[in-house]
Amino acid sequence: MTTTSSQDLTNTARPMVGTDLAAEMVAKAAERARKLQDATGVQPCLATVLVGDDPASATYVRMKQNRSKKAGIGSVSVVLPAETTTEQLVAELTRLSEDPAVHGILLQHPVPDQIDERAAFEAIAPAKDVDGVTMHSFAAMAFGQPGLRSCTPGGILRLLEAYDVPLAGAHAVVIGRSPILGKPAGMLLLASNATVTYTHSRTRGLPELVRQADVVVAAVGKPNFVRGDWLKPGAVVVDAGYNEGNVGDVHAEEAARVASLLTPVPGGVGPMTIALLLEQTVDAAEAQTARR
Amino acid sequence: MTTTSSQDLTNTARPMVGTDLAAEMVAKAAERARKLQDATGVQPCLATVLVGDDPASATYVRMKQNRSKKAGIGSVSVVLPAETTTEQLVAELTRLSEDPAVHGILLQHPVPDQIDERAAFEAIAPAKDVDGVTMHSFAAMAFGQPGLRSCTPGGILRLLEAYDVPLAGAHAVVIGRSPILGKPAGMLLLASNATVTYTHSRTRGLPELVRQADVVVAAVGKPNFVRGDWLKPGAVVVDAGYNEGNVGDVHAEEAARVASLLTPVPGGVGPMTIALLLEQTVDAAEAQTARR
Repeated sequence: MTTTSSQDLTNTARPMVGTDLAAEMVAKAAERARKLQDATGVQPCLATVLVGDDPASATYVRMKQNRSKKAGIGSVSVVLPAETTTEQLVAELTRLSEDPAVHGILLQHPVPDQIDERAAFEAIAPAKDVDGVTMHSFAAMAFGQPGLRSCTPGGILRLLEAYDVPLAGAHAVVIGRSPILGKPAGMLLLASNATVTYTHSRTRGLPELVRQADVVVAAVGKPNFVRGDWLKPGAVVVDAGYNEGNVGDVHAEEAARVASLLTPVPGGVGPMTIALLLEQTVDAAEAQTARR
Repeated sequence: MTTTSSQDLTNTARPMVGTDLAAEMVAKAAERARKLQDATGVQPCLATVLVGDDPASATYVRMKQNRSKKAGIGSVSVVLPAETTTEQLVAELTRLSEDPAVHGILLQHPVPDQIDERAAFEAIAPAKDVDGVTMHSFAAMAFGQPGLRSCTPGGILRLLEAYDVPLAGAHAVVIGRSPILGKPAGMLLLASNATVTYTHSRTRGLPELVRQADVVVAAVGKPNFVRGDWLKPGAVVVDAGYNEGNVGDVHAEEAARVASLLTPVPGGVGPMTIALLLEQTVDAAEAQTARR
């Protein structure tokens, strides 16, 4: 006779969808790319660099090139063999950094083990670092200086902004501390006046810490890692994970019963990442063209 | 008739003293400076740059020069008028960055309001950034890359290490988020595998957050700001504040009744900061001499 209207069985979280917002961003970037080309004859150009033959990485690169093309952004594709050395990769990235026809450079990661990834990233000129992987871009994000942003963290912030999530004074807990995801995400949240806790594999009492969060950013790369009972009711949950089988880092079904806003996987953070990459490629092209 | 043996009236915190450790560090740096000079004829040289006539800043600079001298480190003193422009200061720092006789550069801060402090800091060559203020140095600390450290955060880490404070898995709460103190302190603690919470003026419920901390770093510049009842019993408390009248950011008397380790003010963090400055000046001189 009893009807189950309890929160336990009702999905309550509003999905924080990136798809439409990303499409808008890409449309605007495409419009700016067209204007730049009309005015100066310069087409924004993204160079993608892929080392080795990992099929998933190849798919990502192809997708980014297709999206670029649709947005009127040219692309140059560099594919290097799996046995490429750090020196060879650095030389290639240096060449692209110096090539005036290239405005943005994306090094698809991860790179093969023999390569010093940091050395490779640092060979990208900061002005062309449209994926936001250099030390310069990181420090610029941390210090509120002009610069290009890491695409996933930058996309997350745009999504939070679009959904009017109040960040000033909010407690944001970031799960994961990678140089291009967790660390810059925390710095951007801090720049938005959130209180920021960085958690990671060595953190003790992670569920209790996450339970304090007004905003959770999961960037750990473990499927369904964050459970529903780790969340404070009403929390805003950003799932930056993208694991095999389209599974995020957050247990979506459980989280949806507790969170107020939750990014879907796919269709949440992913499209925002690519949209920011394209937007920043046009930003970089405009800046480099104006400078001549 | 009752005797008061309660914890309330007993100072329990062990003082975490920087003076002796700093003296050891300076003695080792002096020894290395002497060896470098004997072997190559090159004396490590620190350039200090002071803009304006703030008496406190002048005193700090003089103290750093005196300590340098005692350690066998040469110094070059540049004093610029209060009305110096950003362009003039950048030009001076660029000149020092290019001067092969100068191995380390310290720009005393704060600088007068009309100057873009970040632009000035960035004119310091990363190899000579012995005070650890550049974006490059910050990102290197954050990413565990080789580089010079911000002196106060770097000194704090050395002190925690000397007192065998376990950091891996510990929860460190940093109060304050300045680019040369709070932010890099948090990144160094994170690199030591602590869980790190950044708190600041916009943080809500600061006492409750601080009460969770195994390690507290107070870097806020407000006398006696952190009270005893904000601390978890047994917490390790680092007071990086140095306010008028030798008063730290932590209420020392109250904190001593609760903390297990507590830095005195003065004699805690301060001497470590200067010791690291001198040590890094010798590091820089060695690196620059080896490179020739």
